Amino acid sequence: MAKVAILGATGAVGRTMLQVLEERSLPIDELVLLASERSAGSTVLFKGKELTVQAVSAESFEGVAVAIFSAGATRSREWAPIAVAAGATVVDNSSAFRMQPDVPLVVADVNPHAIHSHSGIIANPNCSTMQLMPILRPVRDAVGLERITVATYQAVSGTGQSAIDALREEAADVLAGNDDPEARQYPKPIAFDVLPVAGSFSGDQGYTDEELKLVHESRKILELPDLRVSATCTRVPVINGHSEAVWLETREPLSAAAFRAMLDAEAGITVLDDAETMTYPTARQATGQDGVFVGRIREDLGAPNGLACWVVADNLRKGAASNAVDIAELLLGS
Amino acid sequence: MAKVAILGATGAVGRTMLQVLEERSLPIDELVLLASERSAGSTVLFKGKELTVQAVSAESFEGVAVAIFSAGATRSREWAPIAVAAGATVVDNSSAFRMQPDVPLVVADVNPHAIHSHSGIIANPNCSTMQLMPILRPVRDAVGLERITVATYQAVSGTGQSAIDALREEAADVLAGNDDPEARQYPKPIAFDVLPVAGSFSGDQGYTDEELKLVHESRKILELPDLRVSATCTRVPVINGHSEAVWLETREPLSAAAFRAMLDAEAGITVLDDAETMTYPTARQATGQDGVFVGRIREDLGAPNGLACWVVADNLRKGAASNAVDIAELLLGS
Repeated sequence: MAKVAILGATGAVGRTMLQVLEERSLPIDELVLLASERSAGSTVLFKGKELTVQAVSAESFEGVAVAIFSAGATRSREWAPIAVAAGATVVDNSSAFRMQPDVPLVVADVNPHAIHSHSGIIANPNCSTMQLMPILRPVRDAVGLERITVATYQAVSGTGQSAIDALREEAADVLAGNDDPEARQYPKPIAFDVLPVAGSFSGDQGYTDEELKLVHESRKILELPDLRVSATCTRVPVINGHSEAVWLETREPLSAAAFRAMLDAEAGITVLDDAETMTYPTARQATGQDGVFVGRIREDLGAPNGLACWVVADNLRKGAASNAVDIAELLLGS
Repeated sequence: MAKVAILGATGAVGRTMLQVLEERSLPIDELVLLASERSAGSTVLFKGKELTVQAVSAESFEGVAVAIFSAGATRSREWAPIAVAAGATVVDNSSAFRMQPDVPLVVADVNPHAIHSHSGIIANPNCSTMQLMPILRPVRDAVGLERITVATYQAVSGTGQSAIDALREEAADVLAGNDDPEARQYPKPIAFDVLPVAGSFSGDQGYTDEELKLVHESRKILELPDLRVSATCTRVPVINGHSEAVWLETREPLSAAAFRAMLDAEAGITVLDDAETMTYPTARQATGQDGVFVGRIREDLGAPNGLACWVVADNLRKGAASNAVDIAELLLGS
């Protein structure tokens, strides 16, 4: 039995982690909930017991086997070395350490072997990368992967609870007759619109950090340093659940039927794909569930060795919390 | 001065056509508004005069120079031959005749020359094709175009007024606390979700008619029969205005800066693209305007001769009504 800590326990991902931990059976005998001074003192029900969220301090990590961090990159940079020095292994959901060579970047059902090479910190990938990896791994293994092109349709929950509130308030404004509501979270109102920027701009090539994460994290996780990646990341007026229009180009040809059968055989993937019955996955349907949902599987009319599909997952669960808990399970050997 | 008729005058596109006609100065001395029996009898204000919508009949087209049709493919197939026999030139917004070899498929600022080869009918392209063509023409002319990959984010107004009402009602349900509202227009509720099917499935390769229109219409308009086209068309909870994530592959290299300058020089294109000020086009901003709006212009990290951008237009205006009126202007020589 082990002591486990969660830093960022009161955020959108932190609360989802507690839900996921309640559903699983990790060998935990003590759960320490940590947050900033501002959020400390609040109480959380966990498996019928009331837990008080504590302000994080150097002493917080004494005796902790696994510390799961989801409090942003700045806090991760501050507290991860302290937690590691205290003997904890940190599973970090921020972008702080993902691209460091000595930090494994792990999707539990894609590259669990990478976990063993850690030196104290294991990174959880970004949500939009995460849900794509289980689709790409079997393709890479069977026929080789040359290129991916991805257009994302990302929910506001990825930005946090404030963005969910903002979307609902802006939408209420529009329904009340104001076609041009005040922007509450993003530079423009998102209700009944699509914003072609998720995250912030990074570098001088016109890309956002969200798009560059898809490029670099995919290459690291799949161990394909030369994988060609084209990405446009957008924010849509969806409360929760990221969708992605995905095109793949493979080294050897792969029929749509073989691709579908390959995905159907994966434990973490649910294929929802039938033209007759208009069956396809959507963000609403994926919300509250683990795993990845795939539909619109077809050969790409524009590329000889090309395939296309539509990939959906709950960005708070599969895209963040569940994978962090999966990694904790691997570490604790449950 | 000429007599002009509009069939489908009471629909979403028809009403937009009347707005566009009011703004322009076509040499029209008589405007005949036509609709099905069901919609006949209603009145419309046009340039201060009250016009009564008439039920379409064989006599409706007598003396008509140009008849603009936007009443769906079935009505176009029924009435276009009758209008042509009566001496009218039909500008048809439906999919009925677009791919017929003797019917020019025209975007007024892209291939106006094609208009001359008509034999009574000129077709208006589908909205999601339309807004892309002004972007692709200068690229084709300057460096050659090999391939396009498009993920669409299409507004519900493309389905008609009933879909706008449905989205608003479903959204109100969600805001009232019902996370799983009744689906009122599409197979699933669209409020706060994304549906990865626009239109209906067509053929046995897993594509929708909306996606196949993008493939075949683009090739015809650009006169590039071998253009490689990959498309995924989705419906987003946006009232009006289609957005598209677009990737281009060119024959010769073209820098992002040169691409931006090329688009900036086009009369019908507005470039809204600045990372510093978070400037980018969106559906809300494009609504009510003609022309095409482009942002997120950058080189594609995944393709040597690749470019990426974000293309937005008012699907009822630029995507349908304005181009039909543009064609009427070309025909009437105004």
